[in-house]
Amino acid sequence: MTAAVPRAVTWGEGRRSVRLLDQTLLPGEERYLDLRSAEEVAEAIRMLRVRGAPAIGIAAALGLAVEVRRRVEEAGLQDPGDLREVLDRARERLLATRPTGRNLGWALERMVRAAEGVEEQGAEALVEALQAEAEAVAREDEALCRRIGEHGLGLIPESGASVLTHCNAGALATGGIGTALAPVYLAREAGVPLRVFACETRPVLQGARLTAWELERAGVDVTLVTDSMAAALMGRGEVDLVLVGADRVAADGSVANKIGTYGLAVLAHHHGLPFYVAAPRSTFDPETREGRDIPVEVRPAEEVREAGGRCVAPPGVQVWNPAFDVTPPSLVTALLTDGGILRPPYGPAIRRFLASDSTEKGPS
Amino acid sequence: MTAAVPRAVTWGEGRRSVRLLDQTLLPGEERYLDLRSAEEVAEAIRMLRVRGAPAIGIAAALGLAVEVRRRVEEAGLQDPGDLREVLDRARERLLATRPTGRNLGWALERMVRAAEGVEEQGAEALVEALQAEAEAVAREDEALCRRIGEHGLGLIPESGASVLTHCNAGALATGGIGTALAPVYLAREAGVPLRVFACETRPVLQGARLTAWELERAGVDVTLVTDSMAAALMGRGEVDLVLVGADRVAADGSVANKIGTYGLAVLAHHHGLPFYVAAPRSTFDPETREGRDIPVEVRPAEEVREAGGRCVAPPGVQVWNPAFDVTPPSLVTALLTDGGILRPPYGPAIRRFLASDSTEKGPS
Repeated sequence: MTAAVPRAVTWGEGRRSVRLLDQTLLPGEERYLDLRSAEEVAEAIRMLRVRGAPAIGIAAALGLAVEVRRRVEEAGLQDPGDLREVLDRARERLLATRPTGRNLGWALERMVRAAEGVEEQGAEALVEALQAEAEAVAREDEALCRRIGEHGLGLIPESGASVLTHCNAGALATGGIGTALAPVYLAREAGVPLRVFACETRPVLQGARLTAWELERAGVDVTLVTDSMAAALMGRGEVDLVLVGADRVAADGSVANKIGTYGLAVLAHHHGLPFYVAAPRSTFDPETREGRDIPVEVRPAEEVREAGGRCVAPPGVQVWNPAFDVTPPSLVTALLTDGGILRPPYGPAIRRFLASDSTEKGPS
Repeated sequence: MTAAVPRAVTWGEGRRSVRLLDQTLLPGEERYLDLRSAEEVAEAIRMLRVRGAPAIGIAAALGLAVEVRRRVEEAGLQDPGDLREVLDRARERLLATRPTGRNLGWALERMVRAAEGVEEQGAEALVEALQAEAEAVAREDEALCRRIGEHGLGLIPESGASVLTHCNAGALATGGIGTALAPVYLAREAGVPLRVFACETRPVLQGARLTAWELERAGVDVTLVTDSMAAALMGRGEVDLVLVGADRVAADGSVANKIGTYGLAVLAHHHGLPFYVAAPRSTFDPETREGRDIPVEVRPAEEVREAGGRCVAPPGVQVWNPAFDVTPPSLVTALLTDGGILRPPYGPAIRRFLASDSTEKGPS
């Protein structure tokens, strides 16, 4: 089954490009793009051709390596100051694309640290260091996803369950089998009877276009609903648990995730259902103390005025279009991480989890 | 301002057709259809060219009158049995279109009662009786809307308010200034500062296409959001009250309304916000005891798989597409009716309200 799981981001040929599955064309078309500069990668992130906090982090890391190599090969750069400037500019350009997700800044920080001082050893050494670190970011994410899935299996009854999810926190959002969907894939492999309800996730419809597509492709029993149907599903007793991803988790356990997540958390609470948030350690931001400190990206009005590429509202009507909302820790039953299942109080649990970094990080 | 309020359903020329504003073309095009048979009216109801429980009731009443007149004029029917059969068939065809809304059955019952025995007096008498009753249904609805608006003014602080609404319970859903939007229109006339958030209301997007359009046209400050943004708006303190319409209200105060309404009621409850449901007496169904007795229409999967006319999900993916949900009376702060504001316990309040029928019904 996991063979059927798509890859959102990989190297292109000769590590001279970032190969992205263009997610804006799904589910109609499975087209891969080869992006040869940081600018192209940044534009792809901004246009949501790649999305999902972990996948964005990987794309940015690979993009940074591709950019520096290209500039070295095209312009023959060798001067440490020039190399450093190329690196810094590319990093800034990539970092400016999307403010909410934690993994983007985290992956770029890793790249910068890996490069530190290496430019003194020459351009080739710098390119090699950047490629190695970008590969580590991608490989580690794959391992983190699998570990989230293994820990998450414990949250799904062996007798089967009906899972509601939002947006896409699957393979398409990561370098592996997903975060929220990782336990779903592993439960399916283990023969646990599962039903998944995918909320379509307006305005960009990641649930309809991506989650429904990747689950169907993997043979998981998936039913698509509009976001407005989640309450009725819960009221009818058709949901056993809610499982979503995260773009950033603050030090207190507040969760920034796709707009609509907070509403699902309130609904789950009202119906007495567990509300689980899956996130790898790269999504945790201990420097953001609480939910209100998380910057929330507001996207263009057209995303709401349009549906399926067509304007469905009065052309000039006012719109509010935040891409994310923040769920307070009080509504989160547990945080599902690569280091295990964290329960409230989240402050100390998150500190312990992040302190375990070196032993838990994986093989790299 | 009310001059700018559109008319969803009227007679066509010479009362030989039902004139409908084709709501499936809004907001892009304002096109009126002249429907000359019950079959055409039924098809328009089924296709949502006219929607909103009160407007459907009016369209069906006018359609029944148009059908009988056409058959009389085309086929020269005079036999009471033949007339009766035409009437019954048209009634059945119209009644079968949409199961959830109460007003459709209510309006058709009125038409049948108005016709009772009149066929013995000849075809012309029958046609006249049907036309008069259909006109009464439309005229009374207009008066009921205004009265709802007048009573509803008391729910909106004179200092201003931010109102969240769902679907379209405005002029386009009724024969007048709407149900949930009636207080909004009258508050605006009275100079009360108002802000309305319109939930887009997937899958058919009545909020984006219709509510945003009619409020903008009337000069009301309206902001469009996706259904998934309501929780975040409430969490930020940007909503003072929720005001929605109803398709059927059961004897215990349970409210069937557009899918998503129940979720908004739970969210309002969680945030300590009042949740008001506006409904004229024709929407109340004392014979339906409680919420679970209300039949909920399930509509085609394509409505969810498509957005803006384009398929946005895997073509064969499973879908659940109920057009309505049911909100329990415990989550309804008050019912706003043409007879005043009803508060819990709703059973006795509704019985008293409906018993006041003759004095409250209006001028007709």
